[in-house]
Order: sequence, then structure tokens, then C-alpha cells
Amino acid sequence: MNQSWTNKPILCLGLDTDILKIPIQFSQEERPQFAWNCWLITQTAPFIDAIKINSAFYEVGLASGWQILFDTIKFIRQNYPDLFIILDAKRGDIGNTSEAYASAIYDALGVDAVTLSPYLGREALEPFLRRNDKFAIILCKTSNPGSGEFQDLNVVSLDKDLSLSTSLWQVIAQQVSRDWNINNNCMLVVGATYPEQLRQVRQLVGEMPILVPGVGTQGGDLEQVLSLGLSDSGGGLIIAISRDIILANDPANRAEYWSKQINHRRV
Amino acid sequence: MNQSWTNKPILCLGLDTDILKIPIQFSQEERPQFAWNCWLITQTAPFIDAIKINSAFYEVGLASGWQILFDTIKFIRQNYPDLFIILDAKRGDIGNTSEAYASAIYDALGVDAVTLSPYLGREALEPFLRRNDKFAIILCKTSNPGSGEFQDLNVVSLDKDLSLSTSLWQVIAQQVSRDWNINNNCMLVVGATYPEQLRQVRQLVGEMPILVPGVGTQGGDLEQVLSLGLSDSGGGLIIAISRDIILANDPANRAEYWSKQINHRRV
Repeated sequence: MNQSWTNKPILCLGLDTDILKIPIQFSQEERPQFAWNCWLITQTAPFIDAIKINSAFYEVGLASGWQILFDTIKFIRQNYPDLFIILDAKRGDIGNTSEAYASAIYDALGVDAVTLSPYLGREALEPFLRRNDKFAIILCKTSNPGSGEFQDLNVVSLDKDLSLSTSLWQVIAQQVSRDWNINNNCMLVVGATYPEQLRQVRQLVGEMPILVPGVGTQGGDLEQVLSLGLSDSGGGLIIAISRDIILANDPANRAEYWSKQINHRRV
Repeated sequence: MNQSWTNKPILCLGLDTDILKIPIQFSQEERPQFAWNCWLITQTAPFIDAIKINSAFYEVGLASGWQILFDTIKFIRQNYPDLFIILDAKRGDIGNTSEAYASAIYDALGVDAVTLSPYLGREALEPFLRRNDKFAIILCKTSNPGSGEFQDLNVVSLDKDLSLSTSLWQVIAQQVSRDWNINNNCMLVVGATYPEQLRQVRQLVGEMPILVPGVGTQGGDLEQVLSLGLSDSGGGLIIAISRDIILANDPANRAEYWSKQINHRRV
């Protein structure tokens, strides 16, 4: 499994292939979404290190959609075995249900990592956290405009490493980095749209990798992400770009552009 | 759509049909999980008003699992059109992804309600909340032993109706009841394993329906749920019981038992 994020920031293709936006050249295919996926992956593979697949855009197709999800993962494994595959599913449920989700996602689908909601606490997510062959990516500060409604609430904290009144997302970053990460398989999600929070999360979590969506269509600034989010080793950032690449006229060109921007900064 | 919870507590069958626990009499069927589901629904239908289907136990079967999920919903609609159908999926994502989930769950699968995580805030869940023909059931205080890790954090609140320091789950109950529920289509999840919190949520949310898992295998006490959770109209509780019914030797008998317990209390 590719873990090239340890000493460099990496580009992650977000495969949010909305069936309502399928380019005309694929619309006559037997499975337009799958054909589009294979083409996008092939086009962008030279410029990416990871792929994030958003389960919602496959669930709209019900069983056929899930088959495309499965076949897409198989296509990546067969053709680009070095790519790190994330299922962006934001799951999170009580223990016996988490067991079923972990089995579905890690084993049946066979991806390397999944995004998870922290709301039910560590105990509920143990079936994911104990898998030291896989990664658990916990939501911390999400990229959406309204993410502050609960995430920014001031929490009374008795933690000596946090101030007395601190934001919920800070408590989550702290807990995940200190208490959840015993298998060294946790990551956090912080939106590029919140650069100051990204900087603070980086200070709290050391080398822990951070998955950063929100560059591109959502308006997050790559330069800020790189200047504020890199770890001391110069890595730790998985920068997920979706619509800006997959809806471009020339996705390869666009992926190359972002890859260069990411790598240029490191020189 | 059955909305019989308005003036009485109702029993909801939790269809967490784990394929690892399929009874022997269904193991030779072409689709054992589907056969088990149809049997459980038929057996318990006289005693229930709602069914909660847990998506995790279908996702482990990938595309075939999703087909069984779809076919199970169709079976319920055709044979028991009055049953209220909940997909327990605990989804929650940014706006354009929530659009896809809402379309998948409300339209393609066609259920009446879905459970949702509040972590990303109201803005992210708008595609669910604006559907006044459907219901959005927001996690508040979940039934698992470790739910307090973040849900019980003390939050600094400036809300005049809450004390200065209040729990995260209280803030969520308050926000959902006051700001999210403009279409009168919100509910909350509160575990039966936290009766005191159930009492407090009821005080905060008036007549809003509360989905209560955790009676039965998880150890929640039905009497306490009923004495602390009913609304002023004598309803507002959807009591979800899963393993205690579906893994019983005689699910019909067990569902009848719980139904009587629930109704007995009301007399």
C-alpha cells in the first residue's frame, strides 16, 4: 500500500462521479458511470497517489451502483496497484453495526481507508480502529460553509494541553491523535476552506496525515493548505480534488496542473 | 404514511438481519437474508407500526445486499403499506453529497425516513430537511456505552433556554427542535440506555418524535422509556427493538410481548 504521504503532500482524485453530470461521450456506454470512472482514473493516474470514492454517488444507482463501486475498485487494483483507495462514506454507528460496516468496506469492497464520523465516540468505532492493516479517517473540521454549527462550539475542557474553552473540532483532533491512534492508523479530515483551523490541527497532531477536501470548486486555497498544513517531515497532507478535475474538459491536464502546484511548493 | 406515533408510543422492528446469524431454516434459500426478512416481517406485522432497516447489514453483501435491501422495502410496501419505513444509515455529508444520499434513500429506495449525523450542521443536511414529504431523524444521544466521549462534553452556551454549561446532545436537541424543524419533519435519536437524558430531551423538544433504540439486547428499560419519554399527547416514541425480536425462537411471540408492554403502559 502506497503511503507516500509521509514526506510529501499528495494529490488525491475525488471520484464523485455524479450520474447527472456524465459527459456525453460516455452516455451511450452500457454502464456510463463505470466507463467515465475508468477513463478518469487512466487519464489522471500519472499525477495522483490516491483516489477517494464517494459512496453517495454510487448508492443512487442502488445495486447496480454498488456493482460499479466494486468494479471501479477492482479496476484500480488491477491497473494501478500503488494507488491508495479511500471510501468517503462518513460512516459511524454502534459496535455491532460498525463491525458490519468495517467488514463491508475494508474486506468486501477492499479499500485501504474510510472516512468516519466521530459523533458516537471511539468505543463505537473500535471495529475500524483495531484494523492495523487499514486506515480510519475521522471528520474533524469539515469543509462546508455551515460546519461551525456544532464543530465550532466552545467546549469546557480540563485537558492541560488545551485551553479551558476550546472548539469541539480541537477536542476531537486531540482525542484522535492521543487516544484513538494506538495502531497508528488514524487520519483526520480538515477542509481547505478553513486554513487557520488546519494550522491548529497540525500543531495538535504532529505527523498524523490530514485529508484535505475543499480545494477547487469549494474555493479552498492550495498555497494556504501547503503553507499551514504540512507536517515537520514535509508531508502528512492528502489533498483531495474532485469536481475541479473530473468535470474539466481535460482531466489529465487539470490533474497534472494540481500535481505540479503541490510539488512545486515543496521544492 | 402511518404517523400513529402522534398519540401513542409505537413498536418498530429493527431489521438488523446479520447474515452471520441467519437461522438454519433459511440457509438453503437462494437469498437467505431476503427470505429471513420476509418471514420476520410477516410474523411481526400484526404487532408493529414501523420497521427500521440497518443499511450496514446489507452493504456487507455489496450489490446483492443492496438488491435485498431494495426488495425488502418493496415487499413491505406491497404487503404492509401502512408500515412506516426507516433506513438506519446515519448519513451526513456536505451539500452536493447529501443531495445524492437524499435521492438514493428517499427516492430510489423510497423509504419514509433516514437517520442522520448532526456533525456537519443543518446547512449540510438541507437536502434531507427540505423534503416535507419525508422525515429526518437526527442523532442526539446514542445508545452505545461510549457515546459520552463527545456527546456529553460541556458546551458553553449563550442560549437563554439552556444553562451556561450544557451538554452537546442538549444543544443538538435544542437546535433541531427550534431551527431545523421548519417542515415539521425532524425526529431525534435517544438511546433507551440513557433514560435521564431521554427525559431532558423530551422537555426540550415538546411533541417531536423520538426514535429510541436500545431496549432489549442493549439493556434499556422499556418502563423507564415510557415513563420519561412520552410527549404531552401520550405519544412521540418510536421504540426500535431488533436483536431481541429477530433472534428469538418465536419472533411473532416476542413482538407481541413488546407490543403489549408498550400498550399496557398507556392504559
